[in-house]
Amino acid sequence: MEELTRIRHSLAHLLAMAVLEYDSKAKLALGPAIENGFYYDIEFSEGRNPSPPDLKAFEKNMKKLVLEKLSFECREISPEEARKKFADNPYKMELIDGIIERGEKITVYKTGDDFTDLCRGGHVESTGEINPDAFALTHIAGAYWRGDEKNAMLTRIYGLAFETPSALAEYRKMQEEAKKRDHKILGPELDLFTFSPLVGAGLPLWTPKGTTLRMLLDDCVWNLRKEYGYERVEIPHITKKDLYEKSGHWDKFKDELFRITTREGHEFAMKPMNCPHHCQIYARKPWSYRDLPQRYANTTMCYRDEQSGELAGLMRARSFTQDDAHVFCREAEVKDEVRAIYNIVTEFYGMFGIALEVRLSIWDKEHPEKYLGGEESWRKSVDTLEKLLYELGRKDFEWGIGEAAFYGPKIDFMGKDSLGRKHQIATIQLDMNMPERFDLACTNEEGERERIVMIHAAVMGSIERFLSILIEHTGGAFPFSLAPVQTAVLTVSEKHNEYAKGVWSELKKCGIRAELWNENESLGKKIRNVKLQKVPYFLVIGDKEVESQTVTVESRDEGALGAGALADFIHRTTNLTKSQTS
Amino acid sequence: MEELTRIRHSLAHLLAMAVLEYDSKAKLALGPAIENGFYYDIEFSEGRNPSPPDLKAFEKNMKKLVLEKLSFECREISPEEARKKFADNPYKMELIDGIIERGEKITVYKTGDDFTDLCRGGHVESTGEINPDAFALTHIAGAYWRGDEKNAMLTRIYGLAFETPSALAEYRKMQEEAKKRDHKILGPELDLFTFSPLVGAGLPLWTPKGTTLRMLLDDCVWNLRKEYGYERVEIPHITKKDLYEKSGHWDKFKDELFRITTREGHEFAMKPMNCPHHCQIYARKPWSYRDLPQRYANTTMCYRDEQSGELAGLMRARSFTQDDAHVFCREAEVKDEVRAIYNIVTEFYGMFGIALEVRLSIWDKEHPEKYLGGEESWRKSVDTLEKLLYELGRKDFEWGIGEAAFYGPKIDFMGKDSLGRKHQIATIQLDMNMPERFDLACTNEEGERERIVMIHAAVMGSIERFLSILIEHTGGAFPFSLAPVQTAVLTVSEKHNEYAKGVWSELKKCGIRAELWNENESLGKKIRNVKLQKVPYFLVIGDKEVESQTVTVESRDEGALGAGALADFIHRTTNLTKSQTS
Repeated sequence: MEELTRIRHSLAHLLAMAVLEYDSKAKLALGPAIENGFYYDIEFSEGRNPSPPDLKAFEKNMKKLVLEKLSFECREISPEEARKKFADNPYKMELIDGIIERGEKITVYKTGDDFTDLCRGGHVESTGEINPDAFALTHIAGAYWRGDEKNAMLTRIYGLAFETPSALAEYRKMQEEAKKRDHKILGPELDLFTFSPLVGAGLPLWTPKGTTLRMLLDDCVWNLRKEYGYERVEIPHITKKDLYEKSGHWDKFKDELFRITTREGHEFAMKPMNCPHHCQIYARKPWSYRDLPQRYANTTMCYRDEQSGELAGLMRARSFTQDDAHVFCREAEVKDEVRAIYNIVTEFYGMFGIALEVRLSIWDKEHPEKYLGGEESWRKSVDTLEKLLYELGRKDFEWGIGEAAFYGPKIDFMGKDSLGRKHQIATIQLDMNMPERFDLACTNEEGERERIVMIHAAVMGSIERFLSILIEHTGGAFPFSLAPVQTAVLTVSEKHNEYAKGVWSELKKCGIRAELWNENESLGKKIRNVKLQKVPYFLVIGDKEVESQTVTVESRDEGALGAGALADFIHRTTNLTKSQTS
Repeated sequence: MEELTRIRHSLAHLLAMAVLEYDSKAKLALGPAIENGFYYDIEFSEGRNPSPPDLKAFEKNMKKLVLEKLSFECREISPEEARKKFADNPYKMELIDGIIERGEKITVYKTGDDFTDLCRGGHVESTGEINPDAFALTHIAGAYWRGDEKNAMLTRIYGLAFETPSALAEYRKMQEEAKKRDHKILGPELDLFTFSPLVGAGLPLWTPKGTTLRMLLDDCVWNLRKEYGYERVEIPHITKKDLYEKSGHWDKFKDELFRITTREGHEFAMKPMNCPHHCQIYARKPWSYRDLPQRYANTTMCYRDEQSGELAGLMRARSFTQDDAHVFCREAEVKDEVRAIYNIVTEFYGMFGIALEVRLSIWDKEHPEKYLGGEESWRKSVDTLEKLLYELGRKDFEWGIGEAAFYGPKIDFMGKDSLGRKHQIATIQLDMNMPERFDLACTNEEGERERIVMIHAAVMGSIERFLSILIEHTGGAFPFSLAPVQTAVLTVSEKHNEYAKGVWSELKKCGIRAELWNENESLGKKIRNVKLQKVPYFLVIGDKEVESQTVTVESRDEGALGAGALADFIHRTTNLTKSQTS
């Protein structure tokens, strides 16, 4: 276990000690280390639920405990002793039952003189290893016991913890920046999308600006794809239950499926993914090996019945748009097809300066029963992908043992945004299962029927989710080629309207997405607003510009660029578009 | 009543007479005149259901009756007499109950010596007016009594009838041509779309070729729209029930709504139209009159829970794609906005040689209670549209009294296809209701809140429905600019592959949608197939062409064009694309 994880887990125990000092009857539930820190779920005595000032007091107490250089002593205890010791804590009793059921040892950890917690371990030897200025309690939230809304609601106290105070400070700074860039706030401020209480939570409505952005992103992916022979298809967003029974999704997705009973009593569902529909397009006619690969691309909405509490802006919505694609090919063609998708993915994310880490997710040999196909078939397909990654110069890939889908290995991409946060983004997935279930084949050179392979090849995955990342990655300052409004034309007063209108229409004629800001407002106010809107360029039109038939240019990224001919500005931006999209 | 309708209705009675001669216990239900002919719904005695040869016999009998110059004598009878007379016919009894309930007179029509039918009239004076060679019985179908599947299934016998034998012959020829062009057969043959029994009836899946066609059509409309300042928006395909309760669609569409209950127990629906969603986008912020009109375009799927029996290929599907648009504007802006939509509509249909008739659908003054808004408001809006149609040189428009929507008048377009069939296509609809229900407004010059008007402005209406018309209108021979495959390159034998590949890739580089047909098949077979696929051009590549570095061109519409340089062919088609899309 990593040192940092041990520190975080130990701090969870110190938090518990501080809490018990404040409310000796509080019932501790679970207190694990998590990314960036730790938490503890606790049932407080009635009327003793803590408030933010209490958190400050807990934190102070924890610092005191840290300085005492307390040790964590492990001791195995018998089921009887455990049940006696934790008899008045139903959460720990439930955990103990679980441990006994699984036939594991029961261990407790003692810290200081009085505090003992049921715990499987992973602690520092002494709290002396913890820097008292490198952790902090941050906030309180409600959490159902074991995440199940049928259980009691507990109080969760969150803390951050790092090895050094500067690491903590850096993380907090990043968090603050992230808060400023929160796409849920920034998106509506930039007028990209909106939610309506009548339409419902998790169902974003896209404004003209947001739609422009979506379409430009989709075009980016399509322009890359069409070079590799992809073709577009289109599908209905519903299907009879039969399709998902055959594909296996009816059982797998059952809770998340939006289900429909028609007036004639048939069962339908809204699609939570597109592969079964695309399989039906492939299955429409017999194929010769000469016709393969068939590569179907389709930007289309999918739907999942997410619980209200799980929704998070565009990051997790009930309707989201996949830039989906599926390749139907022979086994021997897999390598070339995956290489093409790899190239598309890296080129696309490269445009936005999002660096990618690669993981090769394979099966877990120890549990062959969890996977479709035998050792030979897994060895072969993993081998293909591994060799390809070497060929692509990606020896730095990680192995994800047991991270494969049950039907085949995959290449997962993790993207790092400008705030240093990692996001699981694209994934290239081999699928031997769907072709089997839908009996997809081609006729080979020998005139025999040959089972084919399917490859899942979404690039953004979900346009909504990608946009939530992109908005926060750029803080809304989109590159020129993507900006919904690329240039704003600002008038100083009404008498400059006519000339400004000419400039504006010339810009539009040259394919630049331009807006005319000729409201009867002060130039200062217009400039403030245009900056808030993160428009890449604005052109000021006043007496001087009208007289000299010029425009005064200011760039979002480079500041004031001075006055010049409109043609020069147009030339500049045309070059910019070329360099940002190639 | 038109003479032709009287002839058709009278023939329905003669059919009944012929039927009774064949099965004297048959129970007559309903026998109206319809477009192009007539039918009669009949319950035959057990085991007496007629077969096609029987139809021939009925027809022969009907001709005999025609020649007898029989008259139709009308007589009013009392409810008692009616009930006594038709006592053993439950269908007629039900009709009689209805007539009595509505307080109408009961009339019967006597033809010849023995036959009397309950009938409200509309007959020829004598069958002498009927041309015995201008009608025919065509086929038998099942039909539920009064169209309700809960009722008994009756036998419906269909007939055609015209004034002259040549009109009948012409209609039958047109029908035969229509059968050959049936989009339900031609569409899959041209590999445009497919249906899957696993996905379900009424849910078309779009192949690469069909998707290309859809996107080209959508681009056509978009290119016209963007000149008029439209912007694109995007919306989720579901909504909480609340949206439709507020818009009034929950009640109005209740049977046709696909409804969903989420896992949390909320009621959702799939959208059967887009206006309420678009209203929510408009409602996201306050608007100044300076910002108006807002014009939102959105190509997106809608869903209606159609009954299985009502489905008809792409003409009536459960999922269909609207090329929808809504304009939010002030009353004073209505005229200009409607003019713009009129221009878009006529330009679009003009591209395909579909002539348009115009109807101005207005309210029915006699029933103001059926409509929203008073006489003054209707007079004003109808006036605006009437003046506009005059300005547009469309004095030939029809008045559709009582054909308006309850919330506003509309301009309906009827299109005539190459077989002379009329289709209700685009419609421009003023809507004062949605803005009222959703409280949509702007701030006017006086700083006051002003209610706005919404205009519905779909051009194709449904891409699927339009495609069903276009496929039959063109017989699958799409204009060059729309053809999913514009040019096929056909090799004579394998040794011409290399040169042919060069030709093919040059075509693609020039933006021509080209296919390489280099299978190991005879040229004759390839030419037969390429003609069946209605590809606008094919280029033959053999020894001669390789040697002289030329291509031999054949055009679908103009026949053999001889050998020439590839560059000339490309030049020719580029000009074609320009002329067909501008």
